[in-house]
Amino acid sequence: MSLEEIKAKIRTVPDFPIKGILFRDFTTVFQDANCLSELEKILVNRYQNLGITKVVGIESRGFIMAPAIATEIGAGFVPIRKKGKLPAETIELAYGKEYGQDIIQIHKDALSKDDVVLLHDDLLATGGTMKAAQDLVKKFGVKKIYINFLVELDDLKGRALFDPDIDVEALMHY
Amino acid sequence: MSLEEIKAKIRTVPDFPIKGILFRDFTTVFQDANCLSELEKILVNRYQNLGITKVVGIESRGFIMAPAIATEIGAGFVPIRKKGKLPAETIELAYGKEYGQDIIQIHKDALSKDDVVLLHDDLLATGGTMKAAQDLVKKFGVKKIYINFLVELDDLKGRALFDPDIDVEALMHY
Repeated sequence: MSLEEIKAKIRTVPDFPIKGILFRDFTTVFQDANCLSELEKILVNRYQNLGITKVVGIESRGFIMAPAIATEIGAGFVPIRKKGKLPAETIELAYGKEYGQDIIQIHKDALSKDDVVLLHDDLLATGGTMKAAQDLVKKFGVKKIYINFLVELDDLKGRALFDPDIDVEALMHY
Repeated sequence: MSLEEIKAKIRTVPDFPIKGILFRDFTTVFQDANCLSELEKILVNRYQNLGITKVVGIESRGFIMAPAIATEIGAGFVPIRKKGKLPAETIELAYGKEYGQDIIQIHKDALSKDDVVLLHDDLLATGGTMKAAQDLVKKFGVKKIYINFLVELDDLKGRALFDPDIDVEALMHY
C-alpha cells in the first residue's frame, strides 16, 4: 500500500470545526487495519537507526501513532499535554492562538540532555502548537530533534516557524 | 521484565486532580523504552489470535496503547471521543458523572456487526466511562467485545458495571 493509497483513505469534512475549514479526518485511515499497519511501517522505516530515544506525542491525536512508532524503534513515549492534565512536576510554555492563549506542559523528568527526540503530531497547519512543543523540548538541551507530521497543509507555510536545523517531515501533503 | 517490575514504575501522585485522590501516573512507564515495549508485548500476547478486528481506545489516555496493540494483532484502531471532537456522523451516549453528565461519541462508520472489538483504557476506577463505551459499541451489534485496562482499582468495584458475558481484564491491580 502506497502513501497515495493511504492519502485516498483520508476523509475530508467541510465546515468542521467551524465554517470554512476543510477538516482532514484520519480516523478512516486508522480504522483500516492495512492502512494503519502500513502507516506504522513507513514511519518506522523513516525514523529507525537515527538513535531516537524518545518519541513525543502532542495531545491528543499525536498520541495515536507516537507510541506505536516508539515501541518499534526502541524508544520511550512522552506526552505533551494541555495545562492541568499532567500530574507531576512540569515545565510549560504559553503560545498565542488566533483567539487567546494556550499553555502546553511536559513532565520535568520526561527528557534529558542525552535524548534524541522525535516530535510527532498528525497535522501541520499553522504550526503554532508544534513550534511551542519544539521550544519546550529544547529547554531540556536534548542532542537532536526531529519533527514529523502525517499531513502538511502546504499553503499555510507552518514549517517556517521551526528552527532551520531541524529535520521536519510530513508523509502526505495538501 | 515482569508486570511487577512495570507496576513498580508507575508513579503515584497524591491529591491529583483533587485533594484525597491518589493518581496513578503511567507516564513514567511509557517513557521507559523497555517498559513500553514489554507492556506492548504482554498486551499483544493476551489479545492476539482472538479474531479481534478493531481496537477501540477511549480519549485520551486510551489512545496511547490501543493503536500499538492494533498494529501488532492486525486490527484497525477506532477512537471514542468526548462530544464535539469527531468530525463526521457519530452515534453518542450520555452518562452520569459525579457532578453532571458527559457525552461520548464514536463515528457511525467505525464499526460493523462483523467486528470483534477490544475496548481499551488505561485505568478502571468507577467504570462509568467504559460502561458507556461498552453500550455504545453494543449498538453496532458487533460479534464480541473484550475490555482491557492497564490498571484496576479493585476497591471501587468498577467491573461490576460491565455485562457479565464480557471478558474484562486488567494487567495490574491496586
